[in-house]
Amino acid sequence: MDDTTGEITPTILVHGGAWAMPDETELAETNVGGVKAAVKVGYEVLVNGGSAVDAVESAVRCLEDNPVFNAGHGSVLNSLKEVEMDAVIMEGDHLNAGAVACVQNIANPDSLARLVMDKTDHVLLVGQGANMFATEMGVPSVPMETLVTPNAVKRREEMKTYNQAIKKQYEIRKIDEAVPVQTGHDTVGAVALDSKGNVAFATSTGGINAKRPGRVGDSPLIGSGGYCDNRVGAVSTTGHGEAIMKVCLAKHIMQYMEQGYTAQEASDKAIQYMTDRVQSSGGVITVKNNGEIGLSFSTERMAWASLQSNTLNYGLNPDEKSSEKYTI
Amino acid sequence: MDDTTGEITPTILVHGGAWAMPDETELAETNVGGVKAAVKVGYEVLVNGGSAVDAVESAVRCLEDNPVFNAGHGSVLNSLKEVEMDAVIMEGDHLNAGAVACVQNIANPDSLARLVMDKTDHVLLVGQGANMFATEMGVPSVPMETLVTPNAVKRREEMKTYNQAIKKQYEIRKIDEAVPVQTGHDTVGAVALDSKGNVAFATSTGGINAKRPGRVGDSPLIGSGGYCDNRVGAVSTTGHGEAIMKVCLAKHIMQYMEQGYTAQEASDKAIQYMTDRVQSSGGVITVKNNGEIGLSFSTERMAWASLQSNTLNYGLNPDEKSSEKYTI
Repeated sequence: MDDTTGEITPTILVHGGAWAMPDETELAETNVGGVKAAVKVGYEVLVNGGSAVDAVESAVRCLEDNPVFNAGHGSVLNSLKEVEMDAVIMEGDHLNAGAVACVQNIANPDSLARLVMDKTDHVLLVGQGANMFATEMGVPSVPMETLVTPNAVKRREEMKTYNQAIKKQYEIRKIDEAVPVQTGHDTVGAVALDSKGNVAFATSTGGINAKRPGRVGDSPLIGSGGYCDNRVGAVSTTGHGEAIMKVCLAKHIMQYMEQGYTAQEASDKAIQYMTDRVQSSGGVITVKNNGEIGLSFSTERMAWASLQSNTLNYGLNPDEKSSEKYTI
Repeated sequence: MDDTTGEITPTILVHGGAWAMPDETELAETNVGGVKAAVKVGYEVLVNGGSAVDAVESAVRCLEDNPVFNAGHGSVLNSLKEVEMDAVIMEGDHLNAGAVACVQNIANPDSLARLVMDKTDHVLLVGQGANMFATEMGVPSVPMETLVTPNAVKRREEMKTYNQAIKKQYEIRKIDEAVPVQTGHDTVGAVALDSKGNVAFATSTGGINAKRPGRVGDSPLIGSGGYCDNRVGAVSTTGHGEAIMKVCLAKHIMQYMEQGYTAQEASDKAIQYMTDRVQSSGGVITVKNNGEIGLSFSTERMAWASLQSNTLNYGLNPDEKSSEKYTI
């Protein structure tokens, strides 16, 4: 809410995944550059009077198309060296939602999730059924190779098992403990508040390296990979999917906000709860329906960016925030 | 908790699905008979010192094997007239969980979910990947025909579309409005508290008649189809899956219990919330970690049974409870 006019200030946040990103200049630049580009795309939708749900879809498409991130183009490879993707989108007015899981050969899984929301009586379609629906909707099937990047292949070679990937990316480390050197990446997501007071979220991912075929993480699941409700706000999560599901991380944050905590307090408390209760790590971006922003992560790094009142904020490391002016 | 000894009283509840069950004597008898049989199986596990998670798995296997219920043998048919099943199991100590969705040719999906929990680093496996895992574990693949009952075929003929099924089974009706005549059935589930203070839940379903291939409902999703935490209690849900997912019904009930509401108050409040927020219906069974029991449903009927301190309670209609003594 803009205090001077009483109008709602359009707001958007995106993340490029919370994980044990090593301290490499190129990696930092491409990740931060990617989230900054995506947040601008979503903000333009909002400033032009578009809805929160259109904004998060546009921002997440931008991240899916960017090979730097583990979603759409750039997704990790499973144990069979195949790409299986999960995505979700939700709007906070009537709590409408759509999701796909374990879908293959789709360039923009989040837009397919949007079609599930808009065109079916269902919320979640998985596997071959999701691909049958895509065909029905005229969504092109793309060859798997077009989604696979050299980085995804390299990473699959480096981390031969799922357990190894989890340990390297999400293990809770002591302060000063070395971050494992790797070329990983994680889930992307966006949350938005539009000028009419509608909130929305979207999350999209290729999952975790070397996962079993058919493995689905938290990302496409309402309450785990994200949640939104106009009466409260919106959340998108990232991190160790199995751990996030066990605590229903997104719904947990909503609960804290309902209890009166700020978006930042709710985000911090929920990430701490996940550390305490299931000893694993992740990150969240949050917007409250009053325009408050929150973000928190227990991994080494999470690329994020926000845009509100023509101010672009972004960061990668804990307690790091850069600001610049940005006008459409 | 037993007030006289300070010991924890083993407790189990099961449900056979909340839906617009018509008022037919045979249907009532088979449904109530089925949940009474299942709750006894689970109670025997508890009384013999077994764990809550073993008890809920045993009870749900019993319901999956019973052709009266829509889970395992007796599952409904999707739009392609095929059986695709979802199941989940969770224990409340470390929040470990396993689930399968859109799995075919498995007699006891909940036991496959248990294997996901016990034998993998994952929580949820879907579609062909879930069946590949079943093969790896030596779980037999059964011909689909062995899971299909004449009732499921009849129902599929009667209700040609998913939307029709939803309207008939879960639409919020005015008082005195006629219940549609049909031969439906729904999701099964169990919650338990063992003598060591561990809680668990399990839910299993064939989904909803005429669903799209690949459609997954709330049942296998942690926080929607159920939730449990030794610090609070356990919940299993049933009803209109898409609506349950949108409100994360199980996690919502946990939240109310954490706020101090009794198991019954939390269950009633959450079902009312679902009616208000997404205008659809369902049912829940709940046990708090102090042994309190709750159950609530907004559909016409829900077959349920509970066993605690050698007292077997059961019912089918709103505000109906029968009691009898039962000793192992």
